[in-house]
Amino acid sequence: MKNIKLIVSDIDGVWTDGSFYYTKEGDSVRKFTTRDSYGVALAKISKIPVLILSGEENSMVKKRMKKLGLKSVKLGVKNKLGTLTDFCKHQKIKLTEVAFLGDDMNDFNLVGRVGFFACPSDAYPLIRENANKILITAGGQGSFREFVEYILQQQGQLESAYKMYLSQNGE
Amino acid sequence: MKNIKLIVSDIDGVWTDGSFYYTKEGDSVRKFTTRDSYGVALAKISKIPVLILSGEENSMVKKRMKKLGLKSVKLGVKNKLGTLTDFCKHQKIKLTEVAFLGDDMNDFNLVGRVGFFACPSDAYPLIRENANKILITAGGQGSFREFVEYILQQQGQLESAYKMYLSQNGE
Amino acid sequence: MKNIKLIVSDIDGVWTDGSFYYTKEGDSVRKFTTRDSYGVALAKISKIPVLILSGEENSMVKKRMKKLGLKSVKLGVKNKLGTLTDFCKHQKIKLTEVAFLGDDMNDFNLVGRVGFFACPSDAYPLIRENANKILITAGGQGSFREFVEYILQQQGQLESAYKMYLSQNGE
Amino acid sequence: MKNIKLIVSDIDGVWTDGSFYYTKEGDSVRKFTTRDSYGVALAKISKIPVLILSGEENSMVKKRMKKLGLKSVKLGVKNKLGTLTDFCKHQKIKLTEVAFLGDDMNDFNLVGRVGFFACPSDAYPLIRENANKILITAGGQGSFREFVEYILQQQGQLESAYKMYLSQNGE
Repeated sequence: MKNIKLIVSDIDGVWTDGSFYYTKEGDSVRKFTTRDSYGVALAKISKIPVLILSGEENSMVKKRMKKLGLKSVKLGVKNKLGTLTDFCKHQKIKLTEVAFLGDDMNDFNLVGRVGFFACPSDAYPLIRENANKILITAGGQGSFREFVEYILQQQGQLESAYKMYLSQNGE
Repeated sequence: MKNIKLIVSDIDGVWTDGSFYYTKEGDSVRKFTTRDSYGVALAKISKIPVLILSGEENSMVKKRMKKLGLKSVKLGVKNKLGTLTDFCKHQKIKLTEVAFLGDDMNDFNLVGRVGFFACPSDAYPLIRENANKILITAGGQGSFREFVEYILQQQGQLESAYKMYLSQNGE
Repeated sequence: MKNIKLIVSDIDGVWTDGSFYYTKEGDSVRKFTTRDSYGVALAKISKIPVLILSGEENSMVKKRMKKLGLKSVKLGVKNKLGTLTDFCKHQKIKLTEVAFLGDDMNDFNLVGRVGFFACPSDAYPLIRENANKILITAGGQGSFREFVEYILQQQGQLESAYKMYLSQNGE
Repeated sequence: MKNIKLIVSDIDGVWTDGSFYYTKEGDSVRKFTTRDSYGVALAKISKIPVLILSGEENSMVKKRMKKLGLKSVKLGVKNKLGTLTDFCKHQKIKLTEVAFLGDDMNDFNLVGRVGFFACPSDAYPLIRENANKILITAGGQGSFREFVEYILQQQGQLESAYKMYLSQNGE
């Protein structure tokens, strides 16, 4: 846990509860939670880069990630292991230095390959059985925040990260 | 269960939690879950055709079914038993070879007529009392996926179907 | 209960869970459930007229009620007791022949005035304490349907109403 | 509690469950509850001014607050303690005369500085541990209403406030 150099996360079922809202224009709405924005803030303060890796591609996720200032955002990824392996090679990070958060079978190929694999409390059974950690929080309820907090806590950095956060917000 | 040649499903209350979101334009939004897309993928891998049979007609459902690659989609159906009987005759499938997933009284006429009738955990009481199987999942929480997985498991095909899915997604 | 000649219902918190979805255009979305449409169908089959009485006024509710074929729809009503009294006088119905479904303090003046006052399971505490009946269903989960079913069951008409419904839907 | 001269509330996670609905236009929808409108009505009847203090800025919140007749609405506030201190100085109110409702770490700097700090039942753990009062209601379920009702009840004014409300609504 001390060697986590990259935080990677799926979106649907993790940052959301897996819901797709369809209008006459098709797939048009994603429901996120403000809680996960704390996960992004904490990772930034702790200088751990974040990579988003999603099988779906849509402008709602792009807009949300842009708002949060996340720049490594790969959407419409069919082969997550391949894409992550390439990304890590380019960044000179080992897969064992990656902490991954995913919830379903399109994340399954990463189980046992990354250093740390966590999932929301309502992930698919086979994912829960094989993950290194099942979070308390369900997808869309702040599981990305809990994931980042857990990593920082294991590294003994959580309290100092929040102190930094508070000092940046007016104390 | 070994003779299931057609999977048929209702939409509202099954693929959704029964919610209708109204805007100034009227009935405008349906909330689906990404989980049910696995049900479609598994049925496709297992070469079991899927028919959608809904009493409502709207472009949101059309868009979602098109995105998932489902082609047999009958919406605005008032007489589900009649429509299904005609469809089966045309396809040379017996009603006893049909597995149906429905949640409410407009599906009731199919109880005892199809080979296997299942319902989500939050279906209408009279449906739950008469169904062959009450799923663990509620409508909109992935009950279509659980339904397909249950059929494949009974046929001993679930594990191989997921292996095929994983091999198609980059392993 | 045998003398119920008019079914009256609030909307927000009853047909919905009390949610107001705001967009840039303001109050723009109401989430209903398909389950309540059975309540309307059952009342129609049983020839008991339905009156909608809501403190809010918006086009989403108007569209929904129109879709369901409800014609007595009074929105933006500040004085519900006064409006209902006038309506009943005009229709030659006594207040004691009215069954009312409401959830919050703007319905409180009707408690003890109508023949039967019911509320969803998640109604405001003072309403629950004073209602003649607390339904099992929460607002937005089908409480209007449960309300109509309860009235018909008390009158011994529920089973025949559903038989009529099924015969109208293709059996 | 008898000296509360100003009610201050956060929005996201308090008036909402923390959800951000993204469309192609970005952050586009907020889900509120009609229940909180009773909190506004009760505060108005009791002549306690209300100030909204939110870290986010968007037109959905502006529209909702305008509909409710709230005029002191400060959005996009990064330093809540500083902004509140300035507001109180201008209004000649002491911080110890302020009751505040917040749910997360961007409200933490106010803990121990205002006279009374409450939070929804699902607030962030560190907030719950340090708040003067944890409400029964979760964010988006009417926690602002419960907050105002609690203050009025402590002051012995709740019953008379509802009597006034009922008399204004037609009794």
